[in-house]
Amino acid sequence: MPAHALRLHYGNALAPAIGPAHGLALTELKRAEPVVRQVLTRVERERTEGQHRYRDLPEDQQMLKQVRAAVRRHRPGVENLVVLGIGGSALGNIALQTALSPPFHNLLGGTRRRGPRLFVLDNVDPVQVSNLLDLLGPGLRKTLFNVISKSGETAETASQFLIVRELLRKKLGQKALARHIVVTTDPEQGTLRDIVARDGYDALPVPPGVGGRFSVLSAVGLFSAGMCGIDIRRLLSGAARMSTAAAQPRVRTNPAAMLALLLHAFYVRGKRSHVMMPYSYQLKDLADWYRQLWAESLGKQHDQAGRPVVVGATPIRALGATDQHSQVQLYREGPNDKVFIFLEVEKFSSDVRIPRSRGVPDELAYLQGTSLGKLLNAEKLATEAALVSSARPCLTICFPTVNATTVGEFILLWEAATTIAGGLLNVNPYDQPAVQLGKELTFALMGKAGYAQHTRTLRRQARRRGQYEV
Amino acid sequence: MPAHALRLHYGNALAPAIGPAHGLALTELKRAEPVVRQVLTRVERERTEGQHRYRDLPEDQQMLKQVRAAVRRHRPGVENLVVLGIGGSALGNIALQTALSPPFHNLLGGTRRRGPRLFVLDNVDPVQVSNLLDLLGPGLRKTLFNVISKSGETAETASQFLIVRELLRKKLGQKALARHIVVTTDPEQGTLRDIVARDGYDALPVPPGVGGRFSVLSAVGLFSAGMCGIDIRRLLSGAARMSTAAAQPRVRTNPAAMLALLLHAFYVRGKRSHVMMPYSYQLKDLADWYRQLWAESLGKQHDQAGRPVVVGATPIRALGATDQHSQVQLYREGPNDKVFIFLEVEKFSSDVRIPRSRGVPDELAYLQGTSLGKLLNAEKLATEAALVSSARPCLTICFPTVNATTVGEFILLWEAATTIAGGLLNVNPYDQPAVQLGKELTFALMGKAGYAQHTRTLRRQARRRGQYEV
Repeated sequence: MPAHALRLHYGNALAPAIGPAHGLALTELKRAEPVVRQVLTRVERERTEGQHRYRDLPEDQQMLKQVRAAVRRHRPGVENLVVLGIGGSALGNIALQTALSPPFHNLLGGTRRRGPRLFVLDNVDPVQVSNLLDLLGPGLRKTLFNVISKSGETAETASQFLIVRELLRKKLGQKALARHIVVTTDPEQGTLRDIVARDGYDALPVPPGVGGRFSVLSAVGLFSAGMCGIDIRRLLSGAARMSTAAAQPRVRTNPAAMLALLLHAFYVRGKRSHVMMPYSYQLKDLADWYRQLWAESLGKQHDQAGRPVVVGATPIRALGATDQHSQVQLYREGPNDKVFIFLEVEKFSSDVRIPRSRGVPDELAYLQGTSLGKLLNAEKLATEAALVSSARPCLTICFPTVNATTVGEFILLWEAATTIAGGLLNVNPYDQPAVQLGKELTFALMGKAGYAQHTRTLRRQARRRGQYEV
Repeated sequence: MPAHALRLHYGNALAPAIGPAHGLALTELKRAEPVVRQVLTRVERERTEGQHRYRDLPEDQQMLKQVRAAVRRHRPGVENLVVLGIGGSALGNIALQTALSPPFHNLLGGTRRRGPRLFVLDNVDPVQVSNLLDLLGPGLRKTLFNVISKSGETAETASQFLIVRELLRKKLGQKALARHIVVTTDPEQGTLRDIVARDGYDALPVPPGVGGRFSVLSAVGLFSAGMCGIDIRRLLSGAARMSTAAAQPRVRTNPAAMLALLLHAFYVRGKRSHVMMPYSYQLKDLADWYRQLWAESLGKQHDQAGRPVVVGATPIRALGATDQHSQVQLYREGPNDKVFIFLEVEKFSSDVRIPRSRGVPDELAYLQGTSLGKLLNAEKLATEAALVSSARPCLTICFPTVNATTVGEFILLWEAATTIAGGLLNVNPYDQPAVQLGKELTFALMGKAGYAQHTRTLRRQARRRGQYEV
């Protein structure tokens, strides 16, 4: 198997580039290496004990076969695919679609060659949902709904499911339901699994031991991708290649380990915001996917032993060149508390020439005969150089080209880096204890039985609201 | 004129709600009021001297008339409107469209009633641009391009313009150009104004003395909005109403002043990230518009007198309920360095009932008979209460409903708050000196004459790149 195709450049995060006050010294990196190596060794041992199960997905041929078979079963005649899911059941799906299907895919319309239009409904906004249902209206007969929820109790997804099921029943009849619904859920248990068993929907598994934010390379993310014609086999092979690289004990040649080491070192130095700034439309939603991965995995107030700590970098998505005209003023002159992670594409899948033509003013003559791809990459280098001149640390992840293999690599790179960074911070990257309270308070507000203990909190809040307003 | 319709709730940012370590004491607010009042007085005096010109836009009847006339001239027969602009020449246009046109507007297709499909091309990504040009292909004859740039020298917009002009010339002939291009630029001077004068395009003014990020309520933002059927007269009347409120010397009844006071007080206390989290699909891109406004205006390293300082909060866009499943773990347990600004909608323009139906498991019974709007607002209250229980300061801006008037209010609210916050920080909110270097480095990389002095910097950077990679 060849080495990974992505390249991580970190020269502009080091003291020789941005000075010792903000840049990492080479000696610092060297000192950190044994600690990272320990974490790597532990992770690899734990993998043999059945932990870090997401790392097994790229090699899971049975899962791949199962997803491909489901795609073959459902694709004929489907013009709209609607994913009902939120968080880890949506962000990966969106990211894969933006990265690997053409921009404006939905405007081109669902066709046999391109696959269906894809709508990922990751919210319960009533205006958005009612407009989508209206839009689908006449096309409901050619619409497939993929409901994704491990337990089936996620309030947002469950509500959408109840609405859609009743709509299908009304418009197309009870018997049609099974043709229009595919459920991705726990293979053994849970509310949605029970419904599947009773109502006979086609179902795909959320793999045991894989949390939502690490699940994009399972049926969760792969079914919608496969339906839209994305090469999911190459996605997995890219991920497998990076998984091999991420298992290497030599830190200097392990991109996941280097990434974790660098970001951890900057976190300790007080640089607690990570700006991920792709210079590519196709990569923009991968930045959003990463945002959940890093925030939920590493924002923690207890360490592995249950001792109180407070950690968590804040991931921020940006977009080049667009955000040069929105954020770079702050990024260069504001507090030096950020690490910049550029995503760069060496060769775009298509380019647009800037023509030579009559009547071009002297001021714009330099643009003629070049191309948008050349301009975009020049802007990336220029923005990076400007940040470096303001002593801001910059990393670059370079994609030779954007395709299923390199996107697969990218996903596994960040998943593995998250695990390693969890090890360096000594926190559990796989739980999310702080999410529970909001869920319970929602239940209390919606009148679900058994949550009355929260009523007082909510009443106090309601009282305060009227008191301080303008 | 009635009072403003938006409400700012700040009880959950105060010590009684979240404790004295993180909440503001009422005495603190009181002490800050005279300082804010001084700034307000100064701003109102400076307005009479011709500064803060964006505040005059809501009352500019001539500008409104001019934009409406342009809309009447161009709307007939136009099925696609493409805005070529970036930063302040795009973010407002996008935000107005998302807030006030139906979701999926473009998928519904351009019609006479709804107006054209709108594409805001705010980047030079070659894959995105080439795909858009392909998509328009057969419809080019019914496509209008609105080129927005004050100077005409913005590299991204200029490149797009050169490409589009040549395409139109080739496909539709030289004579057709003037029917397909409307230019929004400086009324007197600049590269684009020269082109307008020579080639005879229809043109609208970027108002003198109004910077890009404060220009959404001028022809910059209003032309595309008007073309898509948005009520721009009500947008301005809402803004005018808020402008009156923002001029009031009594801080406690001035929402812009209170907002500036609160955010400044938290900034001083080290809470330097602002998470704006709308619980509404329609409001999501206003968060992005605000992100430029706040970051570029207030991220500065010199004060008004030219003395070195370092200031600048980092604005972060989020989306409820979606980001509960992505960011709330970090927001509750990570470093307490953020202020949360919720946007809430009291009454949605449409709602979706969650039906009672057969075969609903007990676990989901509580959802039946309620609605998505009710669920979404319950989730907002629950998330806020959960953050409050973790001592995180929360503000809420409540929209009674989302329409042109309230959106106009929102825009002016933040613009005025930005000016006041600039006064409190003693920085110039209207310049962006740090953006220049990146532009020059781009010129150097693209071979524009006169920028050779940057060649060494760029060469050094190129050398470093090969050296530290994995």
